[in-house]
This record gives sequence, C-alpha cells and structure tokens, in this order.
Amino acid sequence: MIDRGPHPIEPWQLRETELPMDKLAQAESLFALSNGHIGLRGNLDEGEPYAIPGTYLNSFYEQRPLPYAEAGYGYPESGQTLVDVTNGKLIRLLVDDSPLDVRYGELHSHERRLDFRTGILTRELDWTSPAGKRIKVTSRRLVSLTQRAVAAIEYVVEAVDQPVRFVVQSELVANETQPKLSNDPRVSAVLESPLQAVSQDSDDEEVILVHRTRSSGQLMAAGMTHTVECPARTEVDVDVRADWGRTTVVAELQPGESIRVVKFLAYGWSSLRSETAITDQVSAALVGAKFSGWEGLVAQQRVFLDDFWDAADVEVEGNPELQQAVRFALFHVLQSGARAERRAIPSKGLTGAGYDGHTFWDTEGFVLPVLIFTMPDAAADALRWRHSTLRMAKERAEVLGLRGAAFPWRTIRGQECSSYWPAGTAAFHLNADIAAAVDSYHLATGDDTFIKDCGLELLVETARLWMSLGHHDRHGNWHLPGVTGPDEYSAVADDNVFTNLMAARNLRIAASFVTRFPDDARRLGVDTEEEAAWRDAAAAVYIPYDEELGVHPQSEGFTDYAMWDFEAYKDKYPLLLHAPYFELYRKQVVKQADLTLAMFWCGDEFTPEQKARNVDYYERITVRDSSLSACVQAVTAAEVGHLDLAYDYAYEAALIDLLDLHHNSGDGLHMASLAGAWTALVAGFGGLRARAGGLSFQPVLPTGLNKLAFTVRWQGVRLRVQIGQEEVTYDVHDGPDASIAILHEGQEIQVAAGKPVTRAVHPRKPLLPRPTQPLGREPLSALGNTTSTRH
Amino acid sequence: MIDRGPHPIEPWQLRETELPMDKLAQAESLFALSNGHIGLRGNLDEGEPYAIPGTYLNSFYEQRPLPYAEAGYGYPESGQTLVDVTNGKLIRLLVDDSPLDVRYGELHSHERRLDFRTGILTRELDWTSPAGKRIKVTSRRLVSLTQRAVAAIEYVVEAVDQPVRFVVQSELVANETQPKLSNDPRVSAVLESPLQAVSQDSDDEEVILVHRTRSSGQLMAAGMTHTVECPARTEVDVDVRADWGRTTVVAELQPGESIRVVKFLAYGWSSLRSETAITDQVSAALVGAKFSGWEGLVAQQRVFLDDFWDAADVEVEGNPELQQAVRFALFHVLQSGARAERRAIPSKGLTGAGYDGHTFWDTEGFVLPVLIFTMPDAAADALRWRHSTLRMAKERAEVLGLRGAAFPWRTIRGQECSSYWPAGTAAFHLNADIAAAVDSYHLATGDDTFIKDCGLELLVETARLWMSLGHHDRHGNWHLPGVTGPDEYSAVADDNVFTNLMAARNLRIAASFVTRFPDDARRLGVDTEEEAAWRDAAAAVYIPYDEELGVHPQSEGFTDYAMWDFEAYKDKYPLLLHAPYFELYRKQVVKQADLTLAMFWCGDEFTPEQKARNVDYYERITVRDSSLSACVQAVTAAEVGHLDLAYDYAYEAALIDLLDLHHNSGDGLHMASLAGAWTALVAGFGGLRARAGGLSFQPVLPTGLNKLAFTVRWQGVRLRVQIGQEEVTYDVHDGPDASIAILHEGQEIQVAAGKPVTRAVHPRKPLLPRPTQPLGREPLSALGNTTSTRH
Repeated sequence: MIDRGPHPIEPWQLRETELPMDKLAQAESLFALSNGHIGLRGNLDEGEPYAIPGTYLNSFYEQRPLPYAEAGYGYPESGQTLVDVTNGKLIRLLVDDSPLDVRYGELHSHERRLDFRTGILTRELDWTSPAGKRIKVTSRRLVSLTQRAVAAIEYVVEAVDQPVRFVVQSELVANETQPKLSNDPRVSAVLESPLQAVSQDSDDEEVILVHRTRSSGQLMAAGMTHTVECPARTEVDVDVRADWGRTTVVAELQPGESIRVVKFLAYGWSSLRSETAITDQVSAALVGAKFSGWEGLVAQQRVFLDDFWDAADVEVEGNPELQQAVRFALFHVLQSGARAERRAIPSKGLTGAGYDGHTFWDTEGFVLPVLIFTMPDAAADALRWRHSTLRMAKERAEVLGLRGAAFPWRTIRGQECSSYWPAGTAAFHLNADIAAAVDSYHLATGDDTFIKDCGLELLVETARLWMSLGHHDRHGNWHLPGVTGPDEYSAVADDNVFTNLMAARNLRIAASFVTRFPDDARRLGVDTEEEAAWRDAAAAVYIPYDEELGVHPQSEGFTDYAMWDFEAYKDKYPLLLHAPYFELYRKQVVKQADLTLAMFWCGDEFTPEQKARNVDYYERITVRDSSLSACVQAVTAAEVGHLDLAYDYAYEAALIDLLDLHHNSGDGLHMASLAGAWTALVAGFGGLRARAGGLSFQPVLPTGLNKLAFTVRWQGVRLRVQIGQEEVTYDVHDGPDASIAILHEGQEIQVAAGKPVTRAVHPRKPLLPRPTQPLGREPLSALGNTTSTRH
Repeated sequence: MIDRGPHPIEPWQLRETELPMDKLAQAESLFALSNGHIGLRGNLDEGEPYAIPGTYLNSFYEQRPLPYAEAGYGYPESGQTLVDVTNGKLIRLLVDDSPLDVRYGELHSHERRLDFRTGILTRELDWTSPAGKRIKVTSRRLVSLTQRAVAAIEYVVEAVDQPVRFVVQSELVANETQPKLSNDPRVSAVLESPLQAVSQDSDDEEVILVHRTRSSGQLMAAGMTHTVECPARTEVDVDVRADWGRTTVVAELQPGESIRVVKFLAYGWSSLRSETAITDQVSAALVGAKFSGWEGLVAQQRVFLDDFWDAADVEVEGNPELQQAVRFALFHVLQSGARAERRAIPSKGLTGAGYDGHTFWDTEGFVLPVLIFTMPDAAADALRWRHSTLRMAKERAEVLGLRGAAFPWRTIRGQECSSYWPAGTAAFHLNADIAAAVDSYHLATGDDTFIKDCGLELLVETARLWMSLGHHDRHGNWHLPGVTGPDEYSAVADDNVFTNLMAARNLRIAASFVTRFPDDARRLGVDTEEEAAWRDAAAAVYIPYDEELGVHPQSEGFTDYAMWDFEAYKDKYPLLLHAPYFELYRKQVVKQADLTLAMFWCGDEFTPEQKARNVDYYERITVRDSSLSACVQAVTAAEVGHLDLAYDYAYEAALIDLLDLHHNSGDGLHMASLAGAWTALVAGFGGLRARAGGLSFQPVLPTGLNKLAFTVRWQGVRLRVQIGQEEVTYDVHDGPDASIAILHEGQEIQVAAGKPVTRAVHPRKPLLPRPTQPLGREPLSALGNTTSTRH
C-alpha cells in the first residue's frame, strides 16, 4: 500500500498532522499557494528546514545557454528557467535566545491545513525551546485571488506557561541558497544568485527590494509592510540591504499573551517598465492590501472561491479519498490559472520549478479543458497568452523552413527552449492541441470577440504550419512523416495517428472559422484556394490501420515492432532512466496515451469496436511513465465499458501528488494530471463530450461510486449533472430563463431553470475482458481505498 | 572553375609555388607528414604565420565533459579530443636583428614540395629581411616510416650577398595557442593548455619535455637533439622550462656560406608506462635517429616508399591532374595507416584535429579496403586496434540493453564519444562494416592467425549485437527498425536497406567462420543453435522494395516522403548548416551514398536492372554533403555504364582536398575520400570485387582515359592490372612461382609469373540515360580538366 503520509481524508481540506522530514519537498508542493501570478511554496515560515525554497512570479525567468556537444542547425541556443525570486514568506522567531527551529527543542504538535474553500494555509505548532520555553504559533497564509499582486501572512505567537521575550524578524530575502538537485532531466537547472540588486527602499512601515535578472534583464520588486498587535510594549525596527530587508518586532509576553503580526506582501515585475513604475506598483499594492486588512483579504478570498466552487465542484460519493483528491486537484488547477492573465500556465503551475517552470502542451491539452468548463475567462487568458507569442512561433517556423507558426514545445516566454528536438520540436501536435483548445473554448462560450482578436489567427497560422509539414503521396493520401506524437517512448515516426487526426482537425476547424469570419480571414491573407487546400488535405489524411491485428498502429509500422521486454524491466520505472531512447523508440512500449488520446479527442474517427480493440491492445503496452496518461486511459476505459479500470485510473490521476506516485511531486505538482482527474470523472463517467451540436453525455458509474455530481459552464449557463447508479439528473441554475439543449445517450433533451430532467443510466458492457497492464504497472485500485482512513 | 591554388600538376609531387595567406590552413593539411603514429601539420618552420598549429600522437587525447541541456540514459558523459602536443617542428631564425617572418621584409620566392616517392617535404625560400639582408633557407622534413617514434628536419640557411649573423632557435613548445574555431559542428573542440608539465631534462645535446594530460592522465615525452655543420664558429646553448625547450645556435656567415642544422625529434606516450620509461624510450629513439643520421633516415624512407609504390601505385594516362591526385591520395592513406600499429586511423589521419581526431566507420569502410590490397599488415593492425576496444564495445552494448558488442560511432580510445545518438549510436551499421572488413582482409590474405586472434571474436560479437537488434515479424521476416544508415540526412528509420543487408552479411560471415574455426567458436560460447539463428535471421532479412517505382527505398517508406525542395536550397550547401535535421530526415534528400553503397558492398543482392534504376533514382536526390559519397557513386555509376559520370566522381573524390571541395580541408584531409579515389578507379573502372571465389574484374575505361594500371596484393601475390580502352593485361610479379586465378568478365583465367594474360575490354552501355544531380550539385567535370595546367 502506498504511504499517503500524515494526511487524514477530509472532504474540503488537506491536513498534515506531523512534519516528516523526508517529505518536506512534497509537502512544500502540496501546500503551495498561488493565484497564477504569485506562487509561494509551502516552506515553513521560519525558512528552515526546507527542501526547495520557492517563491515564483509567473514568467519571471532567467536565460541560460543551452549547451550542445554536437550542435545542429535550428537548435535553440538559450533556455529559460523560472527564478526563485525574493522570498517574502520568511518570518523568523527568536524565543528568548533560541531561534524557532522544529529540528531543535521539543515539537509537541505541528499541523498544517490547506482549506480549499477559504484558500488559506493554516499552520499550528506547539513547541518548547531548548531552553524550556513553551510557545504556540499559529500562522495563516494566503495568496490573494482578488488582489493579484498581494500575499499575506497572519502570524500569532503565544507564550504558554512562562514569560517569554519574542523577537519576530519578518524578512525579504533575495538569492536564497538552492539545494543541489539530481541529474534527473525532469528537474530544473540550478541558477546561482540569479538576481542583481537594483535598489532598496524602506521607511518605518514599508520595505521594497528591486532586483534584475542578469541575463534576461527582467526587473522585479518585492515589498512588505506589517501591522502588529500586542498587549505588551513592542519595538519595531526596519533594516535593509542589497539582498534583504527585515522588519524586527520585539516584545515580552506573559503566559497566555500573544503577539499578532500581519505581513502584507506585494510583488511586481516587468521586462519593459521602469524601476520606479514597478516600485510604485508594489507600493500601491501594499497600500491596497493593508487597506483591506487581513480580514478583508480573507473575506474576498472566500467570496472568490465560493463562486468558483459553485460552478466547479465535483462531488464523489463512495470514495472519500477520491472526493478529497479531486477537490485538492481542482483547487490547484484554479490556483494555477485564476490570475495568470495572459501569462503561461506552467506544467507544474507555480508550485515548484520542475521542468524549469516551462509550459508544454499540458496547458491546452489538459488544463484548459477543465478551465473552459469551470472558469472560461481564465482559459481565454491562457489562449491569449499563446497568441501573444505568435510572433516568436512564426519566426521559429521560418527558421525551420516551415510556414505559419510553430509553437515551442517548452517555454516560459514563447521562445523554443527544448534542446532535444526528437522529443521537442518534432512534437508538432502541440500546434493542433492549441487549435483544438481554441475551438473548444469557442464551443463552450460562443466568444466571437476572442476569435476575432486572436483565435482565428491561431487557427490560420497553425493550419499553415500543417500544410507545410504534410504532403500528398502519389495516390493522393496526405501524410505527416517524421513527427513525434504524444507518446515520448516513440519519436520521429511516420503518420502518427494522433498527430494526423489532430492536424486534419486543425485544418477543418481553421477552414470552418474562416468561413464564419470571412473578413477577418481575408485580413490574414486567407483566400478560398488556401481554405480549399486545407479541406482537401484534411479529407485525404492517411490513417494507418493494421488489418491483421484489427488495431490502429500508433504510427505507421508500430505494431510490427518487437515487443518491449516488460519482464526484464519490471523493476526499472520510469524506463527513461534505465533504457536508451534508441531502444524505447523502436519497440512496442508506450509511455503515455497516444493512440488512446486520439480515441478520446477525435473519438468520432473510430468505431466502437475499434476503440475496444485499441484499448485492449494499448493497455498491455502502456507503462504510464508520464503523468499525462492515467486520466486519458480513464476516459477511454470508461467509454469501452471497463468501468472498474477507469475508476482505478481516475483515482490514480487524482492522487498523483498526494501519494507522490511519480516521486517528483517535490519539484511541483502535476497540473495536467490534477486537471485530468476532473476529466477522468466528467468525461469518463459523465461521458461529457463537447461538439458543435452541443454538450453530450453518456453517464455511467463504476461499482463503488454511489454518486458523481459536477457542474459545467456552457454558453453562460451552469449545468449541474448528478449521476447515480440508476439515473442521472440534469439541472441548470443561472437565472430564471436559463435553458440548454443537451444530448443524453444520443438523444436531445432540454433542461431549463427549475425543470430538472432525470433519465435512466444504462449499464455498459465491455466488448472484451478487462485488459492487463505491463507487469508492475497496474493502476492503483480505487476500490481498495474506499473505506480506508489511513494516516 | 575551382581554384586549385598554386599547385602545378606534376606526377609524383605536390608543389606549392607561392604562400597565399588565405590558404594556410589547407596547405598545412596538404603538406602534413605522418607515419600513423606521429603527425606534423605543414606549419612553417618558424611557427608563424599559422592557421592551425598541429603536432599529434595517434590516440593521445584529452577527455572533456559532453554537455547536454537535456540528458538521457546512456548518453556518453565524456568526449575525447586529439591533443596538439609539444611542437617540435619549430626552428626560428634571427637574421641579424630581424626574425624571419614571411609577412615582413621581402619574400622573393617561397616553394614547398611534398615528394610522394621520398616522403620528404622540402621548403625553399629566398627572403630579404626588413633590414636588407638577403638569405636563402632550405628545409627538409620527414616523419620516419622506419623509425616510428622519429621525425627529423634538415635546416640550411645561406647568407646570399652580405655577411649575416644567424641565430637559429630550435624549440620544443607545449600548449601552443590555439586559434578560435567556428561553430561548425564538424570542427574540433578547443582545448586550452591541455598539457601539464611533469618534468624536463636537458644536457648539451638533448632536450626532453614530459607532460601529462589533465583529465585523461596520459603521459607523453617529446625530445630533440641536433647536429650542426657550419664553416664558421658557432656557439650552441640549451635552455629548458616547464613548457618549452630551446637549442640556440649562433653563427656569423659570409656571403655564399651556409649553416646546416639537423634536428632529430622523438615522441613517446603511454597511459600505462612510467615517466622514466617514456623518457628513456624517447631518448633511445633520439640516439637511434642520430645514429642513422639525416641521410640514413632519408634512405630508409625511400626504401620503404619504393616498396609501397611497387605494390600500390595507380597509373592514370590521359588526366595528369587525376594522376597527381590519386598518388597524393595514396601517399596520405599510407601515412595515416603505415605505422598506426594497433591504434586507430582517424577520419582525418593525423593531418588535423577535425572531428576531434575521431575514428568513425570511415576506417573499415573506406580506408581498409585500400590498405587490404596495398599494405595488408597495416589493415590487420587497424582491425587489431578495433579488437583491442572490444571490452568497451561490449560494455556499451550492455548499457544499451543489447548483447554482443556495440562499437562506438566516434572515438579515439574506444569509448563512445557521440553525443547525438540519432546520428551516432543508432548508426549500428558500423559494426557490420567492421565485420565486412574482417572478411575482406581474410579473403585477401588467408590470414587464419588473425581470425583466431581476434577476427572471429569481432564477427561473433557483432553477430550477437545484430541478433539483439533485429526481430522476426509475425510473417517470419527479420527486421531492424529504428536504426540509422550511412546517409546522415536520414536517421532512426525502419529497415534501412544498407543496414539490413550488411547485418545479414555480418551474420552469414560469422556463421561461416564459426563453421571453419569450430574450436575457437566454442571457446567464444557459440553453439550450433546460435549459429543456426544467425543463418535463419540472415535468410529472413526484410528488404523493402517500391514496386510502383521499381526502386529500393533507402529505408521503409523513404520513397513516399516528399521531395526535398532542391530549388529553394540551391545556394545552401552543406544543407546541415541551413536546415534542421527534422526537415532533412523526413524528406527525400540524401547526404551520401546509402542505398548506393549497399549496391556496391552487397552488389549480388541487386539485379543489374535494379542497380540501373536505383542509380538513376538516387543520383537525383544525393547532394554529396559528405566526403564519403563521390567515390561510391563513381563505382556504381561505372557499374551501370555511366562511365563519364563515374569519371567525374572519381575525379571529385581524388581532388577533394587539393581543391578544398568541402571547405574544411584546413581541419585535416579526408582520408576516406582519398582512399575512395583508389576505390573509384580500381573498383569502378577496374571493376574489382573480392569474393570468396577469388578476385573478379570487369574493366572498362571512360572516354578520356587512355590507360589505368594498378597493382593489388592478393594471397601474397602482386597482381598488376593494365587497362586500356581496347584491352586489359593481367600480370603477376612475386617470384617465379606466383600464380593466381581470377575472374575476368565472369570467366576464370589463370595468371602466372612471366605469363601475362590479355583480354578484350567490352564497352558498357547504360540501361538509362546519364542521370542528373540536384541543382548545383553536379560533380566536377573530369574531362574539363584533362589538358589544363592551371596554377
């Protein structure tokens, strides 16, 4: 049984009842707070012990050279790494003459709670110093969802049974020491002292430090101000240096007395604006925060989150652990995107610097499908960020000898940062994934302004890319040789089914929007010939099929490859750390859903029997070394009737970070998998699919789940879906006139406010028996965990 | 017309009549001297001006980390770079108070001559110093082919018309300043001061400097001693420091008088032996050299070369330029391998540090076929070097999860140094190329001892590699997916025809030798089951064929790829500097002979019509951005009857460095292409093929060549072949009993000493018209150069 750490299963919070030193990194990620602009890892207030200190500003990065022992044309020369910026979380405490450090003295209790409804991280500790002074500390921390530049900490210290002199040092510290990281390619590059001091300012109240990155030349400011409440006399002192600022509060308290320090933090950065402009911006944010006060910030946070949960909550009856996990997941997805506002949503959000803080296709492929249905404005913002990088994508295409736009495989600011092209640049499907997200967003919202502003251009330029990537053979079939699909244990293959289908879809979507927005299309230089060429290529797309086996090869020839020796590698996962790419690429072994993802995203291109046979085939060779797999396997397993298997995968997707299933949650949480937990439930058991014709549902629950309820936003209406083992009820709640037409099991039904519709749920029989997985790669059993209250 | 520089066309030497400053690098390579152990670039005696200073000891390298922005399992962490060792070529001259530097004063004449029959580089200059003193210098330089550790320089200075005080400073200098090189991936990594001083020793006669590489820990010693002849009084002084040693000779000469300094140089290195052992070895070599004296060394050199030319010379009547070029080529091939003695033969010999001084498949694929027929002992030594790296190759295979031995794509000492696996590790054909060379060597010599010592083990371990790389599909066909063939504009493709055929050949050869040497085979653990599996796989090998086009795709699906846009890139060669690998790999464009090479090396697997059609197809898409291509295209063009085209390619292969066709001869000469010039003539127009049944010839000459004569060694006999336009004469000359059975145009004939056999030569008609090449990539016209005496 996997150890889930000291986390009781509770529906609306994640609680940690002890502080195990070997799980510090994971806890720092789990308890990270973010609004999509500022990210604070769950480091302890006093800074130490830590695993990875982390304070991040979305898209604030440093450049570093990408080295190549053998360079090649078009290789990116410069990478981007998310910077650990000035740490404002620090509040050190001196208890008489002992610094508060949980590794010394006696820690009677230590508890942290992340409340998904309040958005507040609470910490309570009861500690006796080495010198015998017992104290209690309660700190509460938030990153404001309503005041984007602001975070705040309420810090309360109580003298328990003896008089104590407390010195509270609240700090801003730049260029924190970074731990040495492993050689695992998935972790980030270490930046040594990335910040150069530009200026410092302080008065009795406020401290602001301004720094600049050495190479990327970005400017940032971090500021703090405080309020202090204390029954005794206090003295406050402010000190500042190039790389730190410190507000010191000293007081002597009697037993039972406590001192309360509220720390207001503000951050700002820009690559364009001046030092004074950023300093002013931070100063203003501090004034605003202080004006709201701690209670005001807390109240605003609650209002924001109530609104979010009203339209996003997923209720799961029958599996409390999954219930908690899916809310934890949604909370972090919300945090990653809520206020990103035309900045990227990185694959680990702002919970850690894993993968250098880069954004991949995870955003459009996994995170946006959730945001589109729960917080569509945030989805639009993320796509507007992509559009803001279009110039760079067009330049990249030109370097590569291609037309249109080639978006980067991994980036912070928009430039390609992937140094290994077979699993980077060659994975052009990213561009079709962006186009699909544009289409999905518009389907869900009807937001024509977005299309005119940027959506159409994204579609047109990606379509142009595909036309320059593909070609017709002498029989008129349209091919895409030498590209890399989603599965990273294959690369540079011919006619990857996923890529070919998604490219064709991209071309069709582009053509369709060009028809609907003809004036805007002409402005982009699209004429009817170009449009016709898109439709023609899409219609002629070649999809390999293995007639003998009755399955789709992931790419041309894939099913003729030798099988991977799963037995020999049964203890060696992830395989990428134990086998060369060469061997992985030329054998039948799949890191993550690829053909399976094609069956989800392009489901209409497969017959039910093909889906059943493909699921059966690929389940046996998919090792899920990627966090992007379980959620997709959940959806397709559910669709072909393997409900128990789907349940297991949904559970695994949701628990990925709570159980640290990939052993790297310490570098940051896996946003795509967390978002995928929602998808596994909603698209898997809810059977939700969005089509031009409207929302469609095919609900069914696995044994063990009594109820699954969720809400999706669709064309401005909130549709609540409550699925039981026997029946499903659809309801809308957005004003008295709200009404929506949906498909239930293929039949159109109308749902209006106050008129819920209930329909029977039909059991689903799989065509084939439940497939097996590679030895040692069976999913966790969701059913095995329904009654457990393990700690 | 390509500028061939100031090099008159002369049959037995390369002469340079001026000293153009923009061609220094090329000249340093062209005039490089080597015996395969020591390599001296053609730097000027006085050291400056220089383009790339270079003194090399075979396999003396420094390690350097191979950086990866994104590392992967099995990537080599450490590279090897040939070190520019202690320079002993330096003889500086002070003329009164002016240093001899051809960039100052007045240079009346400057000539260098590399004589292919004496092996001596002569330099004559006539110079007036800035102060008006006219002098003449004649220097002669050799790297001894008979005393492996020795080089020598005879330096004569004459006062022409006024009394002159000469100070001759003869030096050893370690850690010379290296020029900054370009970003071209084909040049070498720059090592800054790679040598650490260990010790220095000098007496009145001898100076020895001992150095060690910092990281690879190899130890080397360089020593010098001198003889001085002078009609006037001389004083000699010896001085030594950590990184240099200097012997200074001063004399004042009257007009017409001259001073003659002979410098004897010796080098030694080891990674195992002690400092004193190496010092002693170098000291002994110096004593030996001095004992022979300059004249003795010169005489030995001549004897060695006379013997070489007797069995290796190629006579070409009708094209003096080609005649000169092929002798130049053979001379450098000789130099690269003559005394390598179980060290590698690098792709640029010891003429420069291009490609980091690495050895690729060029050795077995291109250089050994020439040495096998001209200097078979040197070929055996090169294969024994490969065998000496077998342990590393087996370890590499194990790391890769494979069985047998995986020899490195590029290396100096045996460890894989390729950091880009799609064009390195994946090019497993190297292993079959080694096996083929073993087979060819044994065919030509019948050297069973070699097979027992190491040949059989090479065959067995490479066969085992192939068995772990290949697999049978469900129809019993044996496949090799995901490998890289010779063409570097394709990579990681399925069922590369060349690789599949060569792998099958490797398996068959191994099985055949195992049958012939059963005891040795059992010792290597080969049983009859293993042997049978080899034969079975070889028999079942899958060879893709495009029925519609009637040609072999280079790899599965290749002929379905889109055509490269040759028009758009017509001014952008080599393409690798202007287009990403991604695009090159997925289009029909060929860097170098691949399928074409398969038709040469595995000619029996193709029908004449297939060959004609394949040549026609691949000629149109092969851009020859590799120096390994023209010679192969020459052979296949000749075979299918495009004799003029073959002539052009033979010319291009031979002239590659004299005309600097790849613009990188300055980094070192292209040994494979130079060797390929011999192959183009002998296998192309001679139609020589070596088979188990014996040597086979299909001679025919192109228009413009009146005669082609060459000698090959076969089973201890020297067979001379003289081809005219009308007839061919076969003759043997190795003792009165020499006799050999050969095939002429498929018919067996017996040639015995004193009984030359003459046969008619039949004209060859091509099935198809002469094919075209990509725009701008037509070969040089050999015919256009037959009468030219351009300077």
